[in-house]
Amino acid sequence: MEVTPPEREAMARARELAAAVLGSTSPNPPVGAVVLAADGTVAGEGATAPPGGPHAEVHALAQAGERARGGTAVVTLEPCAHTGRTGPCADALLAAGIARVVVAVPEPTELAGGGAARLRAAGVEVLEGVERAEAEDGALASWLTGVREHRPRVVWKVAATLDGRVAAADGSSRWITGPEARAEVHRLRAGCDAVVVGSGTALTDDPQLTVRDVEGARQPLRVVVDRRGRLPATARVLDDAAPTHVSSAATPRALLDELFARDVRRLLLEGGPTLAAAFLRDGLVDEIVMHLAPKLLGSGAPLVGDLGIPTIADALDLDISDVTLLGRDLQVRLKATRHTGDAAAGNGRD
Amino acid sequence: MEVTPPEREAMARARELAAAVLGSTSPNPPVGAVVLAADGTVAGEGATAPPGGPHAEVHALAQAGERARGGTAVVTLEPCAHTGRTGPCADALLAAGIARVVVAVPEPTELAGGGAARLRAAGVEVLEGVERAEAEDGALASWLTGVREHRPRVVWKVAATLDGRVAAADGSSRWITGPEARAEVHRLRAGCDAVVVGSGTALTDDPQLTVRDVEGARQPLRVVVDRRGRLPATARVLDDAAPTHVSSAATPRALLDELFARDVRRLLLEGGPTLAAAFLRDGLVDEIVMHLAPKLLGSGAPLVGDLGIPTIADALDLDISDVTLLGRDLQVRLKATRHTGDAAAGNGRD
Ligand SMILES: NC(=O)c1ccc[n+]([C@@H]2O[C@H](COP(=O)([O-])OP(=O)(O)OC[C@H]3O[C@@H](n4cnc5c(N)ncnc54)[C@H](OP(=O)(O)O)[C@@H]3O)[C@@H](O)[C@H]2O)c1
Ligand SMILES: NC(=O)c1ccc[n+]([C@@H]2O[C@H](COP(=O)([O-])OP(=O)(O)OC[C@H]3O[C@@H](n4cnc5c(N)ncnc54)[C@H](OP(=O)(O)O)[C@@H]3O)[C@@H](O)[C@H]2O)c1
Repeated sequence: MEVTPPEREAMARARELAAAVLGSTSPNPPVGAVVLAADGTVAGEGATAPPGGPHAEVHALAQAGERARGGTAVVTLEPCAHTGRTGPCADALLAAGIARVVVAVPEPTELAGGGAARLRAAGVEVLEGVERAEAEDGALASWLTGVREHRPRVVWKVAATLDGRVAAADGSSRWITGPEARAEVHRLRAGCDAVVVGSGTALTDDPQLTVRDVEGARQPLRVVVDRRGRLPATARVLDDAAPTHVSSAATPRALLDELFARDVRRLLLEGGPTLAAAFLRDGLVDEIVMHLAPKLLGSGAPLVGDLGIPTIADALDLDISDVTLLGRDLQVRLKATRHTGDAAAGNGRD
Repeated sequence: MEVTPPEREAMARARELAAAVLGSTSPNPPVGAVVLAADGTVAGEGATAPPGGPHAEVHALAQAGERARGGTAVVTLEPCAHTGRTGPCADALLAAGIARVVVAVPEPTELAGGGAARLRAAGVEVLEGVERAEAEDGALASWLTGVREHRPRVVWKVAATLDGRVAAADGSSRWITGPEARAEVHRLRAGCDAVVVGSGTALTDDPQLTVRDVEGARQPLRVVVDRRGRLPATARVLDDAAPTHVSSAATPRALLDELFARDVRRLLLEGGPTLAAAFLRDGLVDEIVMHLAPKLLGSGAPLVGDLGIPTIADALDLDISDVTLLGRDLQVRLKATRHTGDAAAGNGRD
């Protein structure tokens, strides 16, 4: 019952396949699947298609064809057992003659659960929890936040100088960072279902908020939170390059509820400092991507607005998960240290 | 005449030897020397002793003894040809029967120059400029700044949250960073001849500014710039753990002149934001060591005070030279991109 080396390799590949479709599957989870033939060689690969399309397993089985018989399916999420817009994956695996299934994350929703049990009942060997943490921290993270907290996962992206300024005294902020960091922002957008800014940023910078120069990328929903109706009709974010939602949600949580109902599972919060502070104060930032330029300004808009923190012992704590150089700039990825979340039924996948 | 692999190895070791005595040799340059016997094996090693003591070459020759005869001396700085508090190193090398000398940095001062010429005249093979940039950017950097600009090299060290705050709204700043970063600050101090803060930091934090828990370290001179005489006699910086200089120098350059006259070649500027801004505005910061804690404050003292920079295009540009994790904190080392300095005679070494 131990996991074999080819299965570990297949699991790493399955995570990659899932990461590549991040931003195109919501509200469904981005899953990766690899089918190994009975001799342990790769017979098929698949990832979740956009909503309504086939799940990862079905893709991989189709590619494997007859080579799936007696083989092993390696998947990042437990195969579903229910009929949504597509049929149950557990049944598809049985029909293909799969003998063994290796799963990273057990299905957390009651709705889609029971896949492993159905497979076992039919005599298939099922190994669950293999490299589970890696899968949960990877492409599945946003979908899991949705399942547990009924809201999109929030990734705050901010570009600042090393002294924590997001704009100079005269309001200028183009360009704080170099071309490599700016290209990475477009990749970040492509991995999200929606991108949001406050009215202040929309008015000052008039950003278009589209994904540019990323091959095969979907355009995420553009969102401006503009409670006082200050956004002019001429704003670039209202052009027809991508869909746009102008919201007057009173609080960050209300905005997340609106977006969750629109199937958003991963939200890129692109500022500015006032809106970001509101999200942070309410404990609604899950990940942070900071692009720090090797520059000093000494004045200008601060990286984040007031958080109501009076003393150093109360500072908002984060964990650095990754540090990379992007050209001359520094990218620091962080995670909130707060741990929330109670697994709940429903809000799963179709 | 090409440099050999054992000589390259010896040069790397010579740089290490020099780095280990940084902070104890001023106003003399911290030099490293390795003597290779005729068969290419290491016969002796040395580094500059505190002022009045032997130079690096003399140390290495003493260790090598008769094995130096027909051998090679590998040194980070051209051997001196003048008699200061010690005799000329060029003569010592000749007396020991050294056949070849490999030098990284040519002596930039007229006073001590001429060593290579004297050696060549006596029939010794001299190779100059070997891995010169590495040596100039290493332990010799501060001494070279002194030679070129007649002032100490300034290393600004700052500990801040990732949103650029060096203290919280209530003034509290202990501890922004963790124990690993704080230990590194003591190593930084040990490598400097003096440590300076403004009166604001002395009054708010009452720091002792000594080197603690670094084996064999000298205590650098403690300096407080206090133009209005606000420092109380009870300040910890005035205790007898190390010498202290209270200055009322009107400008950063005036302060550097004072300290240069006191043989300071490497100065650690430990803030606060007002004094650091004054140094930066005057182009007098050469290196920056930032310790960034994975925390957000949203308010409090900014990393650096006003720099008089109105717009993003005028931001002060830096280059990242190194990024390391120190426990949970991030250390970013930077260099000013500005290039100043005209080589001048004098102000060399004894
Ligand atoms: N470098 C970067 O990464 C970056 C990114 C973004 C912005 N910036 C800079 O930031 C500056 C703009 O700063 P900003 O703080 O004005 O921008 P902002 O945070 O985008 O906008 C602030 C506005 O958002 C609205 N808002 C909507 N929901 C809110 C909520 N729940 N809580 C608080 N406010 C909410 C408020 O206006 P209503 O009450 O009318 O809704 C508020 O005035 C510009 O200089 C821009 O260049 C830099
Ligand atoms: N986290 C860190 O790394 C760190 C480090 C240091 C300080 N801090 C924090 O910074 C805060 C103190 O900030 P601060 O800005 O008041 O401290 P500061 O920069 O140490 O002191 C400012 C004072 O320095 C004096 N000064 C002397 N020469 C000067 C010159 N050429 N130009 C300008 N000022 C000169 C001025 O007083 P006179 O006119 O009377 O001489 C000025 O008021 C504290 O909260 C402290 O905790 C944090």
